[in-house]
Order: sequence, then C-alpha cells, then structure tokens
Amino acid sequence: MQHDGAHDAHELRWEREAWRLEPDSAQRALDVLVPRSAGQIVREAFYGTRRFDDFLRHTGMTRGVLSARLRELTEQGVLARVAYHDTGSRGRHEYRLTDKGRDLAAAIISLLTWADRWLPSPDGPTVVLTHRECGAPVRTEVRCGEGHRVDSIGDIRAEPGPGARPRS
Amino acid sequence: MQHDGAHDAHELRWEREAWRLEPDSAQRALDVLVPRSAGQIVREAFYGTRRFDDFLRHTGMTRGVLSARLRELTEQGVLARVAYHDTGSRGRHEYRLTDKGRDLAAAIISLLTWADRWLPSPDGPTVVLTHRECGAPVRTEVRCGEGHRVDSIGDIRAEPGPGARPRS
Repeated sequence: MQHDGAHDAHELRWEREAWRLEPDSAQRALDVLVPRSAGQIVREAFYGTRRFDDFLRHTGMTRGVLSARLRELTEQGVLARVAYHDTGSRGRHEYRLTDKGRDLAAAIISLLTWADRWLPSPDGPTVVLTHRECGAPVRTEVRCGEGHRVDSIGDIRAEPGPGARPRS
Repeated sequence: MQHDGAHDAHELRWEREAWRLEPDSAQRALDVLVPRSAGQIVREAFYGTRRFDDFLRHTGMTRGVLSARLRELTEQGVLARVAYHDTGSRGRHEYRLTDKGRDLAAAIISLLTWADRWLPSPDGPTVVLTHRECGAPVRTEVRCGEGHRVDSIGDIRAEPGPGARPRS
C-alpha cells in the first residue's frame, strides 16, 4: 500500500488500490439521493410531507420533475403510493416512506448533524430533532456491534467483502 | 396539522406545513454529495484514495470532471490539497479529507449500511468495515444526547429551529 509510511491515524488503512469495488454500496445508496430532486423528496418525506401538492410547495420543483422523481422513488421501494380519501373529494394518492425509506433516517440525521456543524446557517438550524422521551438532541453515533463507540476513522478496519474483485 | 388522525408511529409528527425550512441543513449536506461525481470522490476519499490518478482509475470519470469536482470539494473545505514528493519525481499534490470531510464518515457509513441491507448486490458487499479493536461490524446508531437508542422515527420530536420562517 503506497501510503503505509505517510498515513495519519484518522483514515482507513487497507489495500484500496488492489480492489475493484464497483458496484459500491455507498455509491448505490447515494444514487438513490441523486439527482438533487430525489434527495429533496426523501428529505421532505422524512419531515412528514406526503401529498403531491405539499412536495411541490416545499421543494419548488416543477410538476413534471416531481412526478418523475416520485415515480422513481416508488419503483425503488423507498416510497409507497397509498390511496386516501379527503372528505367530499375524489380519491387521491399520497406518498409514504416504506420501511426501506424510513431506514434512511440514520443517513439523513447524519447529514443534518454534519451541516449544522460545518455549514451553519447564520440564523441557526431550521429543524431541531430531539428525543421525544427525554428531550435530548438526536444524532447518529458510529459504533460497532459490541457497542463500542468508534470515534475516529482510524479505529475502523476496512476489508474487501465478497463482492470485491481483485484488480488484474 | 392535516395528518393528526392518520399518522403511524413511525414518522415525525410536527407542523411541517407551517414552516419554511430552506436553506435546509439536510439539503445543504446532500448538495455537497451531489452531483454524483462529488459523492463518488468523497466516498473514494473515505476509502483512502488521495491521488488524482487513483481517483481517476477508481471513479472512471474524465480528467475534466474530476478536476472540477476536486476543486469544488477543496473550496468547500471537505478536501485539502497537500503537496507531497515522490522520490525522484517533481512535486505533486494529493487530496486528503479535512476534519470537515472526515466528519462525513457517519453519513457514508449510514449509506453503506443501508445499501447492504436494502440494495444487496448478488455477490455480497464490496467493503466490510469492522472495529479495529474487537472485530465487530461498524455501523451507525441513532441516539440522543442522553445515550438512549432511538429505534423509530416516531420517537423523534421535530421542531422548527431558529432558522425556520413561518409560512405567510
């Protein structure tokens, strides 16, 4: 590994160069949130938005773009299209996070926390998340399956998984 | 709030409709990882890639796109451009994650974990992250400042922060 002598304690140390990782998991997850409009919709769904017109108002995108993204996210199983009836109006549909979509919460909360720390807006955060039970702020922690806090990337061992292919 | 009677226990409950949240923190963080090529570079930097030619090989993007994205990520303070000297060659630069960039680890690990669970590749994960000290798998957990596990979005209270503006 080329940086064996030069790395600091804050990075992954492994033979990255020796492996092909594509299709990479982090990338496949990111691709669900890219293009920008897809990320906006998932974020809004996490905030509780469900209806087409509400997504439209909160995201400012055009009806055509919103329709396309909602269809894609539904096909990906991140959102489910569910019928509902307003009193006195015809049947409509709304979009709800599925279990798969809700499981993106840790990623969204990590991104929120990161931006509040590193890209603070002059007015302060627009959304504050707290634990309903005790009122303490909610964030993500990197931990291992044994429950240990992992405070530095240098504490993580990265290894090629079964899906990795050696570079030829 | 329009869904008071209809929500399930797995979602945020707050008066989302009453507030303008833009510029939203989650969105500002996502925007650092969008376009796709920016996300690819941050992911690769997290995996330990530092040099232009290595980014080029691992991401498959063109030199022009890679240069533009590296410049933007450096301007955003996610990467730092650092001089190094290869023996016998002229001075070169490499790109390292800054503290700000490394702090995206929780988001990247959350995305990795999500994709390994919900978008599994037939061959298995390409990267496996374990705790260097004990060998247990590394992932993120949603917790509050008091240390309680937050297992459901329904356990989170969302409130407009100081940066939110009432809708007029």
